[in-house]
Amino acid sequence: MEVSNPAPEIQPLFADVDGTMCPSRLVLEHVTSRWGVLVLIALLERSYRFGELRRRVGGVSEKMLTQTLQTLERDGFVHRDAKPVIPPRVDYTLTPLGEDAAHRVKALALWTDERVPAVEAARARYDEARGQ
Amino acid sequence: MEVSNPAPEIQPLFADVDGTMCPSRLVLEHVTSRWGVLVLIALLERSYRFGELRRRVGGVSEKMLTQTLQTLERDGFVHRDAKPVIPPRVDYTLTPLGEDAAHRVKALALWTDERVPAVEAARARYDEARGQ
Repeated sequence: MEVSNPAPEIQPLFADVDGTMCPSRLVLEHVTSRWGVLVLIALLERSYRFGELRRRVGGVSEKMLTQTLQTLERDGFVHRDAKPVIPPRVDYTLTPLGEDAAHRVKALALWTDERVPAVEAARARYDEARGQ
Repeated sequence: MEVSNPAPEIQPLFADVDGTMCPSRLVLEHVTSRWGVLVLIALLERSYRFGELRRRVGGVSEKMLTQTLQTLERDGFVHRDAKPVIPPRVDYTLTPLGEDAAHRVKALALWTDERVPAVEAARARYDEARGQ
């Protein structure tokens, strides 16, 4: 009797054998999140206070920036430096781990920046082929 | 009469002088999107059909995968290869531009993967300091 081979199992990427997603997936999501990317790149320039950082990142709501900073702080990428002065002053800086992450994310951002003309040409071809 | 210096203007990152966000920000968001990252990394292995790719990415809904593939195809990162056979067969592959993007994204994912212990230690410290 012939036994047909079962289709090879496809395992999810960055998942454990039981299908649980690996923690690295979540860390990657934090550093590549819409605002995470820009916060890391901004903090590579210098430390920023909250309001300054919000202007530098651009287009981010207060709530989203707070949330992004908390996530990056908890992950150990950002250090929240609350100075015991009056009026209170809080600076956000990169930790060494955060600096390393930021350099990598920035390299990707610069690569993307250089590819914009190619991407725009691809979009024009795509839209034209669909009569849009 | 003394004139106080105005606070230096902070310009948003990846934005034009008029405050419009640069196209590179959007391209970066596409390649670093939650599912974009995993689709690019998966397609670096080989071309996949839709259902296979969905299993390989893991945890993605049909709708989100369709949308991610369309975005990456329109940007010129992914090629949708519809073969004129019966039954119809569609393979998704990386374009040379997509392959370049995928290598960079994968390098970032591997870097993240290696930093998981450091991130988990940072989280434990953060939570402990807050009595959680």
